[in-house]
Amino acid sequence: MRYLTAGESHGPQLTVIIEGLPSQLPFSKEKIDWQLARRQKGYGRGRRMQIETDQVQILSGVRFGKTTAAPVTLVIENKDWKHWQKIMATEPLLEEAEKRRISRPRPGHADLNGAIKYNHRDIRDVLERSSARETAARVAAGAVARLILEECGITIAGHVVSIGEVEAQPVALSIEEMIDRSEQSPVRCLDPEAEKKMMALIDQAKKEGDSLGGIVEVIVTGVPLGLGSHVHWDRKLDAKIAQAIVSINAFKGVEFGLGFEAGRRKGSEVHDEIVWSKEKGFGRATNRLGGFEGGMTTGEPIVVRGVMKPIPTLYKPLMSVDIDSKEVFAASIERSDSCAVPAASVVAENVVAWEIAQSLLEKFPADTIDELKEQVTRYREQVLRF
Amino acid sequence: MRYLTAGESHGPQLTVIIEGLPSQLPFSKEKIDWQLARRQKGYGRGRRMQIETDQVQILSGVRFGKTTAAPVTLVIENKDWKHWQKIMATEPLLEEAEKRRISRPRPGHADLNGAIKYNHRDIRDVLERSSARETAARVAAGAVARLILEECGITIAGHVVSIGEVEAQPVALSIEEMIDRSEQSPVRCLDPEAEKKMMALIDQAKKEGDSLGGIVEVIVTGVPLGLGSHVHWDRKLDAKIAQAIVSINAFKGVEFGLGFEAGRRKGSEVHDEIVWSKEKGFGRATNRLGGFEGGMTTGEPIVVRGVMKPIPTLYKPLMSVDIDSKEVFAASIERSDSCAVPAASVVAENVVAWEIAQSLLEKFPADTIDELKEQVTRYREQVLRF
Amino acid sequence: MRYLTAGESHGPQLTVIIEGLPSQLPFSKEKIDWQLARRQKGYGRGRRMQIETDQVQILSGVRFGKTTAAPVTLVIENKDWKHWQKIMATEPLLEEAEKRRISRPRPGHADLNGAIKYNHRDIRDVLERSSARETAARVAAGAVARLILEECGITIAGHVVSIGEVEAQPVALSIEEMIDRSEQSPVRCLDPEAEKKMMALIDQAKKEGDSLGGIVEVIVTGVPLGLGSHVHWDRKLDAKIAQAIVSINAFKGVEFGLGFEAGRRKGSEVHDEIVWSKEKGFGRATNRLGGFEGGMTTGEPIVVRGVMKPIPTLYKPLMSVDIDSKEVFAASIERSDSCAVPAASVVAENVVAWEIAQSLLEKFPADTIDELKEQVTRYREQVLRF
Amino acid sequence: MRYLTAGESHGPQLTVIIEGLPSQLPFSKEKIDWQLARRQKGYGRGRRMQIETDQVQILSGVRFGKTTAAPVTLVIENKDWKHWQKIMATEPLLEEAEKRRISRPRPGHADLNGAIKYNHRDIRDVLERSSARETAARVAAGAVARLILEECGITIAGHVVSIGEVEAQPVALSIEEMIDRSEQSPVRCLDPEAEKKMMALIDQAKKEGDSLGGIVEVIVTGVPLGLGSHVHWDRKLDAKIAQAIVSINAFKGVEFGLGFEAGRRKGSEVHDEIVWSKEKGFGRATNRLGGFEGGMTTGEPIVVRGVMKPIPTLYKPLMSVDIDSKEVFAASIERSDSCAVPAASVVAENVVAWEIAQSLLEKFPADTIDELKEQVTRYREQVLRF
Repeated sequence: MRYLTAGESHGPQLTVIIEGLPSQLPFSKEKIDWQLARRQKGYGRGRRMQIETDQVQILSGVRFGKTTAAPVTLVIENKDWKHWQKIMATEPLLEEAEKRRISRPRPGHADLNGAIKYNHRDIRDVLERSSARETAARVAAGAVARLILEECGITIAGHVVSIGEVEAQPVALSIEEMIDRSEQSPVRCLDPEAEKKMMALIDQAKKEGDSLGGIVEVIVTGVPLGLGSHVHWDRKLDAKIAQAIVSINAFKGVEFGLGFEAGRRKGSEVHDEIVWSKEKGFGRATNRLGGFEGGMTTGEPIVVRGVMKPIPTLYKPLMSVDIDSKEVFAASIERSDSCAVPAASVVAENVVAWEIAQSLLEKFPADTIDELKEQVTRYREQVLRF
Repeated sequence: MRYLTAGESHGPQLTVIIEGLPSQLPFSKEKIDWQLARRQKGYGRGRRMQIETDQVQILSGVRFGKTTAAPVTLVIENKDWKHWQKIMATEPLLEEAEKRRISRPRPGHADLNGAIKYNHRDIRDVLERSSARETAARVAAGAVARLILEECGITIAGHVVSIGEVEAQPVALSIEEMIDRSEQSPVRCLDPEAEKKMMALIDQAKKEGDSLGGIVEVIVTGVPLGLGSHVHWDRKLDAKIAQAIVSINAFKGVEFGLGFEAGRRKGSEVHDEIVWSKEKGFGRATNRLGGFEGGMTTGEPIVVRGVMKPIPTLYKPLMSVDIDSKEVFAASIERSDSCAVPAASVVAENVVAWEIAQSLLEKFPADTIDELKEQVTRYREQVLRF
Repeated sequence: MRYLTAGESHGPQLTVIIEGLPSQLPFSKEKIDWQLARRQKGYGRGRRMQIETDQVQILSGVRFGKTTAAPVTLVIENKDWKHWQKIMATEPLLEEAEKRRISRPRPGHADLNGAIKYNHRDIRDVLERSSARETAARVAAGAVARLILEECGITIAGHVVSIGEVEAQPVALSIEEMIDRSEQSPVRCLDPEAEKKMMALIDQAKKEGDSLGGIVEVIVTGVPLGLGSHVHWDRKLDAKIAQAIVSINAFKGVEFGLGFEAGRRKGSEVHDEIVWSKEKGFGRATNRLGGFEGGMTTGEPIVVRGVMKPIPTLYKPLMSVDIDSKEVFAASIERSDSCAVPAASVVAENVVAWEIAQSLLEKFPADTIDELKEQVTRYREQVLRF
Repeated sequence: MRYLTAGESHGPQLTVIIEGLPSQLPFSKEKIDWQLARRQKGYGRGRRMQIETDQVQILSGVRFGKTTAAPVTLVIENKDWKHWQKIMATEPLLEEAEKRRISRPRPGHADLNGAIKYNHRDIRDVLERSSARETAARVAAGAVARLILEECGITIAGHVVSIGEVEAQPVALSIEEMIDRSEQSPVRCLDPEAEKKMMALIDQAKKEGDSLGGIVEVIVTGVPLGLGSHVHWDRKLDAKIAQAIVSINAFKGVEFGLGFEAGRRKGSEVHDEIVWSKEKGFGRATNRLGGFEGGMTTGEPIVVRGVMKPIPTLYKPLMSVDIDSKEVFAASIERSDSCAVPAASVVAENVVAWEIAQSLLEKFPADTIDELKEQVTRYREQVLRF
């Protein structure tokens, strides 16, 4: 299973092609739209999120409500494109090109690196693609992966662990409760006390013209033991998830289970004892390692956290230098979100979903979804009886 | 450029095949052996490190001191194999197989997952491959990558940031000084105060039969701006490095620049202002983002940290369950390291080296090392003049 | 450089995403449309070719006439989709689904294999994707590759060598003359005598309700010496081209230079002597090996031929069996081409173009098209001076 | 499943690492050695084949006669390496390097292309790797793939269809008979009349100092319907086999079923009618398409042919040019085979085996060989009941 995304922030559309899906997979436009909608919510978002209310068009690979195994094309329109047609024209409108040229790179963006690497004198040729708008396409791909996971009894929840210096306290909830509560929280936080403080912090940042990052957590339950493999380093599933998380715009780190805390504790306080019962087979007494040992899933919930830096489009300007005149300027930004962490937790859920679905299809290659389900069921019994 | 590793912890040898090297690359056995030796040092290692003093054999792809562009085969012998020939026999010695069978999975290892996934009733069939012995092969591959980086003026240093609860204080050093000082430190720590405390902590853990993890940092200087790319998520170089780091045995997290701290700070305290001078061209006033923006290198030093959990082979036993009898047992281990963090920092350096060399060859495909160097030089001038 | 295609024969559109293009590449919709138009011409085509007059829409990756390095989205609409909306609906219209179900697999198509593999009881779920309509998407991708080749002085021609039993006689023409003459020929044949016979044969086949295959040849000039590599089997360029050719719908074989004739001749009549002159450097006295030695280009023209079987959609029916009733039936087809070989030669040109452009980007650095051109020029001088 | 090969013709050894095998696969050194031995036989081979009698060493991934799922390392020693140690030294023996330098490229080899591409002034740096000696490594990998196929009831035969102008007449034999008879034939030919003529032709060529190529055929029975896929061009299995065949040293073409003959026949004489019976399920009345439709297997035997050009190392010299002096010389060769076609048919069998085993593992879950077998059995029943 593989996919490519394409599309610019102010171009006509985002496009995703997903190749390698099993056939007969019930394909729900509503469920994909739901993930896209979740990505657009969240306290602290700017005005653009209200302009775009993303919906997916399915343009191939699905017939009468099910996949055919042919590549699936998903399109998400950029609703405000009509105002950008000239600026984003594919034709060589040279006058327009000259007039609209952006020569001022923003700190904290791909702007300068991208311009130099690809020899662009118009920084828009970088920023249109490096924009977080692209994450809508990745959410769409992840939402399709979730259709597979759902068929196999695998559930994903995401929530916000911290925004700025406000940290949520851990709460003991079932995954269904996590999903419900995070959905009702404007900042996708499970701890009501922290939620209030986070919202206050966002209000304050907005007032001061500053921005906030934070930490998000993704939990996956129902994952069969033994996805990924220890036999070669590039087949370890936790490492692939690490790549997926760090590749989300503005993410600067990732950790599993205890994560960085594991480096501070003693060995006797880090590992998970092995238990067994006739009913449940092998399991772990705790889940400090976040569902992975040896690059393979243990059958315990996957617990992965990622950190997002504050969005760099600041009201409070940073100094930068014009690429033409070499003059110093203050990189002020007209319009922006002050905190995108709640939305980022939705993105994180969906990129994790993709990796798990892919590793599922690597362990249980499947031309039809029924074959996959049958295999997973049979394997689960085998794990139980081991 | 790609590579495969093979070999078990107590088999005859580790083998690495590296395919896609440029020709005419000066190929130094000494430099590879040096990296292998560095991996075997470090305060807190167990006895095996003294048994094995790894040396590489070069069995293809190199002639008269230079690469020919043909695949390079590297072999590292396991010196104590002679004592393991029967236990590790490839022939079907069924009696031996039955006698030597291990049915007791250790917590914190790949043992149980691997046994169930691959249906092994002898856990040795898992642990021989999941052993950290394999990192010697990855170090060898990374050491070859360093030969390329060296030709292009790219330097890598690694050091230990913390062991258990002892954290080193940041020190302002050039990369050459870092390399020197960490090499002289038994725990690869740049801060002499912390070094002493770390050693004391290791002594104490050893006495208590416990083990310690910690955090390592890798710094890379001289990296050209623009490695990696923002155009598609799977081409972001920081994300690939994240995969490489998390795939090291026992690593549970990775972060770049400020890392998780970036989630706590305000936006105005996270990003790096852009500066320019005629002599140096574009640059950054600070390097909080650790050398990456938009998945591309900024030209500033790459700064990446990884966290290693304490090694799970504990004197102080954890409970586990026999896969045959289903009896609970205490997973005690005869012989082990109590802290492998210094060695892990060497592994981290070398897996990062591989990723950077590979992305260099993706940006500047090169059939000969001279073409590569010429291209890098020319591009650096172009970056300067932008 | 990679691409994915999506889309069904009677769905709304074909979609192509191309990822990994250099930036600053002049991007001509006209040139892509020209290749699409060429694919639709040819004596012996059925009515559908007159319905569809393919044009490409560029929906990402191009701005003001040049690539930005971001993924390029190309869309080719299926003009008659309006009549197929219900049959090809993505929604679960169960009544429609039942009514329109196809249970009769056609011999010579993917119908039966695809239905069984993917467990489709409606064969349309296979045939919509396995249709040769998909080759329009591959032509579009190849046309983009040609934009790169053109910048580097690489030229591609294709022509029809035989249709049924009529074989063209070899004619000595420059590549420009080949392009002109094949373009003017209704059957893309360079030999005017054979051309007439081919057309007569097609007329006769049509009358008899039969169909014709044939052999096409692709010639590429201006290819630098040394694309591909001998160092690992999966890097040989001729072998990759073989995959590309055989993957075209209905192609059953491929050969280079003398091809199968090389198996009949003696060694002294097969190889190409090496010559050298100060002006031209190294070259070959002949080109019997079709531009390849050791999986690498020799600098001589690439000459590759592929064979297409007659299209299986026959007026003259073959026996088959209904997948539901298991009743035998005669697989008659309402409407079809009787000979698609001229069009197939256009497809072959364009899939070869892709492979060459890709191998060019594997050998030469190319974040921008100017870097690529500069490198190719510099390398050509180096080859000359060797 | 993937593999890398390494090693030079006169270096110490060939090395293969195979990654991705299922566990519990019975692993027979004898069966691999048998394939290696078959490759070394054949009327018309030169003296070297008597020097080397290849045997494989298994250095990882196998324990007590079965795979563990860890990467398998196979080594084939070059027995005459002792005489080549200085010429093939990895150390910078500069005097030796200068003395032994080869500056005379042979026509029909990778020599000149490789030297220019990789900037080698010593052509040995090319020819050691481009040598057909490397096919021993590919045969070893294919022999491992055959272990998988054998478990799944898939059988492979190869034979020689023509040598020079002598063509074998088709004979109706079961695959077991083909295997027996070709094994007994000095030229691996099924037709006893042609066999005699082929041997006479080889004798004559040897006397005249000339060489011969020919055509080989590989047949695979027991392949489940539906390997490969029509949904994306790069997943078609016939096309992958085409790449594998053309990548064999000296191969210039490949065809399936009727192959090039399909271009000459009318549609009504090319396709295979579909039949059905309660006992056998769906099948084909004939097998003109060689076991493939739509890039997928039909369940009928795979029939693929490849053409090998005469080996270019001729007694009868071709003109070439010294890369240093630019003087013309006659490329005479001291020692060589006059016909390697019988051996090439063994290589062809084994590279086809690899592709089929790989596509089997892409379609069916297989962390263990038992899972694979169970799945294949279950799927075969499903195909029967369709």
